[in-house]
Amino acid sequence: MKYCFGVDIGGTGIKIGLFTMEGEILEKWMLKTRRENGGKAILPDVAESLNAKIEERGIAREDIKGIGIGVPAPVVGDGIVKNTANLNWGYTEVNREMREMTGLEVRSGNDANLAALGEMWLGAGRGQKNMIMVTLGTGVGGGIIIDGKAAVGANGAAAEIGHICVNYHERRKCGCGKTGCLEQYASATGIARLARMRLAWDDTPSMLRGQEKIDAKAVFDALKAGDQVAEEIVEEFGEYLGHGLANAAILADPAVIVIGGGVSKAGEIMLPYIKKYFMNKAFFANKETEFMMAQLDNDAGICGAARLIMDA
Amino acid sequence: MKYCFGVDIGGTGIKIGLFTMEGEILEKWMLKTRRENGGKAILPDVAESLNAKIEERGIAREDIKGIGIGVPAPVVGDGIVKNTANLNWGYTEVNREMREMTGLEVRSGNDANLAALGEMWLGAGRGQKNMIMVTLGTGVGGGIIIDGKAAVGANGAAAEIGHICVNYHERRKCGCGKTGCLEQYASATGIARLARMRLAWDDTPSMLRGQEKIDAKAVFDALKAGDQVAEEIVEEFGEYLGHGLANAAILADPAVIVIGGGVSKAGEIMLPYIKKYFMNKAFFANKETEFMMAQLDNDAGICGAARLIMDA
Repeated sequence: MKYCFGVDIGGTGIKIGLFTMEGEILEKWMLKTRRENGGKAILPDVAESLNAKIEERGIAREDIKGIGIGVPAPVVGDGIVKNTANLNWGYTEVNREMREMTGLEVRSGNDANLAALGEMWLGAGRGQKNMIMVTLGTGVGGGIIIDGKAAVGANGAAAEIGHICVNYHERRKCGCGKTGCLEQYASATGIARLARMRLAWDDTPSMLRGQEKIDAKAVFDALKAGDQVAEEIVEEFGEYLGHGLANAAILADPAVIVIGGGVSKAGEIMLPYIKKYFMNKAFFANKETEFMMAQLDNDAGICGAARLIMDA
Repeated sequence: MKYCFGVDIGGTGIKIGLFTMEGEILEKWMLKTRRENGGKAILPDVAESLNAKIEERGIAREDIKGIGIGVPAPVVGDGIVKNTANLNWGYTEVNREMREMTGLEVRSGNDANLAALGEMWLGAGRGQKNMIMVTLGTGVGGGIIIDGKAAVGANGAAAEIGHICVNYHERRKCGCGKTGCLEQYASATGIARLARMRLAWDDTPSMLRGQEKIDAKAVFDALKAGDQVAEEIVEEFGEYLGHGLANAAILADPAVIVIGGGVSKAGEIMLPYIKKYFMNKAFFANKETEFMMAQLDNDAGICGAARLIMDA
């Protein structure tokens, strides 16, 4: 039996999985992300945990293909992270450091890109080689898989789908400093904003009125209950997201588009609203593109990380 | 010495080059594209020409790495073209047919994608592995190079940059059936349209008025002569193209963007107008992206085709 590890380093926790080369997750566990002292303990903590696991299971090192690592930052070249606010890291050579501490081969990549790779391997994109994944969370992230590989780019910043401009007339700024970014409308924060703005527009009755917390979940719950105002809000969300994904598809020509992240937990009810506007701006070659909800939830990152080392 | 062939099949002519594996073009020549009878003669004509050249030069077949072929259509899988209006082809297995007629390894791809690959190898993108090329001709085409390879996509339709939506308020249709496509404004046809519309707006004096043919060249010539109306037209062209390229860069994260095609012959004078709007909508990670004019002109296609087989 041959094995590999997938590691997903997040701002608060580190998820680790032990995989067979066939894609079975044998075991997964979590570590706390120790961000103090510039995050100096993070990689040693991971190495110690992996070395202990190898020992515990009595796995021969030559039976381990290596370690794939996802990092919440751009990763270029041989595992170079220039800095990451989330982990308090400055310049870090992830691959070299982990190789030295484990004696194993190491590959690393951006966590959002690797989540897409994970969904392609073991989730919603299974069997496909060309895929776009968009992750609707606090922000909007994503990954683009081209011919089975996650696009990385010259600066490790490929697939920043959340920052496609979908509204050239927006005056208000995105967190990135630009205006009209998809993230301004399709993130959890963005949907809540669309909701507040719609409710402020007039006084059409809606079950959303008077709710203590109007967030993305409240909007989709109201939609499911048949609330007309909620439907208008989701229609607007679908317009921006559908348009953004149509433009992304024109460049990447995916077989499937996977919708993930916290917002996607509302489920397939959102798909008709997205597809309607996607079809409106999709190039004819992309009209057959399938839409799927993500399947791996928080495991996507470790799956993609493991896949990265399997492809090495 | 090892060799390879690059072939670029166009609607009227077929360009062929004999390359060394180091990227030197030893010889290039043209054939006429015989489109009659469903284009049945096209691949046999190419094979005959290649076989004759191998004979003429006395090259041993084992010294030839293979044949790369660019086709003006989407190419999927192992050289499958489903149909191409330009060549009158129906379903064609380019690679298999050429292998049978030459006994050599064959790879094929879309001509616009291969032109981008050619510019990366021997032209404006030399030394880079992540690049976008946009080709401003009668239409707007392009290629996206990710980690040294041309993106192909699930339907062979990746990098259709001309059909990114850059104007969500356009009412008039693009040839593709959508509205607001970059091609509607940044192609040779599009620039001529912007010019006619600007001249029709009011009667501000311009050297463009009264010219028999107001095409893209006339507009850039007038700009070079200091014509204010021409500058307004180029400003509008630059806005659409800059915005479209900023969105493309957000997905592909290129080190360099190469501007090619007939319109690009006007030269670097267009770059400040494009860059200004690119910077306005570029994600911060992409702000250092370089802009270059294409360098290989009509040879880009054969160079990219040869590169395709070299990478095989």
